[in-house]
Amino acid sequence: MNDVIFENVVTTVDTQGRPHVAPMGVRYQGEGVVVLMPFKPSATHDNIIATGHAVLNILTDTRVFAGCVTGRKDWPVAPTQAVPGVRLTCALSHLELRLIKASDDAQRPVLSMARVHEVNHAPFVGFNRAQSAVIEGAILVSRLRMLAPAKVDAELAYLQIAIDKTAGPEEREAWSWLIEAVARHRATAEVLR
Amino acid sequence: MNDVIFENVVTTVDTQGRPHVAPMGVRYQGEGVVVLMPFKPSATHDNIIATGHAVLNILTDTRVFAGCVTGRKDWPVAPTQAVPGVRLTCALSHLELRLIKASDDAQRPVLSMARVHEVNHAPFVGFNRAQSAVIEGAILVSRLRMLAPAKVDAELAYLQIAIDKTAGPEEREAWSWLIEAVARHRATAEVLR
Repeated sequence: MNDVIFENVVTTVDTQGRPHVAPMGVRYQGEGVVVLMPFKPSATHDNIIATGHAVLNILTDTRVFAGCVTGRKDWPVAPTQAVPGVRLTCALSHLELRLIKASDDAQRPVLSMARVHEVNHAPFVGFNRAQSAVIEGAILVSRLRMLAPAKVDAELAYLQIAIDKTAGPEEREAWSWLIEAVARHRATAEVLR
Repeated sequence: MNDVIFENVVTTVDTQGRPHVAPMGVRYQGEGVVVLMPFKPSATHDNIIATGHAVLNILTDTRVFAGCVTGRKDWPVAPTQAVPGVRLTCALSHLELRLIKASDDAQRPVLSMARVHEVNHAPFVGFNRAQSAVIEGAILVSRLRMLAPAKVDAELAYLQIAIDKTAGPEEREAWSWLIEAVARHRATAEVLR
């Protein structure tokens, strides 16, 4: 298996059709298969097992990544075409997927998904350093409980450089959510001390 | 002007048709214009002024970025379609551009380029943290003369984490060139001391 990991967003629906949005590192296996490893328990895992389908959204609007780790999980979606489900309206492209193999595991089952249908919506226009900084910042924020404040500050200061130099309004908004989340985490930690 | 900067690769040819490959941060202005700010003097600047054209290559093969800052400037190219020039064969897409306005400056002239023709070659498949780390590492290597060794070591160690976790063969090769370049720079600095 190719071990390159791509940071994308998986959308699933439950048996009632309610959507769930989850950023996730995914692997591509050959031309036809996408490998997902959602944590268990998680809505993404349960929805895929229940419905047999998922949608992989490829996007550069990093607000979805920063939003999902700071309590903003409600993103605009549109119906899919070939499988039951939804895709993000901000996706540059999306792949509609069908579960073909589930290797169970106590924590991270490996779900092999066949590519059933794909649609392009908008072009990719190049690397943006601020987008990458938001992705790294979102990962940092998701691990605040495990990291020393000094390490978090040092990494945020490093990432801030790319934000200051290359961000647009979307990246600035995403970054502001991450900075707020760090402050909120520390305020809460103070209270609990 | 939208101030978001995208890291892409500009290919130009001189009046003899010899290609030149240069990674560059670019801006998009509305739907139809790409703004380039090549340093003066530079082959990219001189070629655009001489021929009136350039090609913007959008790519995720970060070996081109790492290669160009470590002496590897010879990348496979293919002919363009609508303007004189070449495009990188590894480009996911390319835009063929025509110079419409040059605002001269002693160091960084602003070249406004009209989008004449665009071609998609391969899909963008998502953010990869290792690719972003190579881009950051390439910028670091291009500034080695101005940076303290301890700062370089700290940033490389931070970026190495994403390489270890998410890289594929292309990113590992690109990263190895950057690490070699740092070692070479230091060996040379020792000799000159």
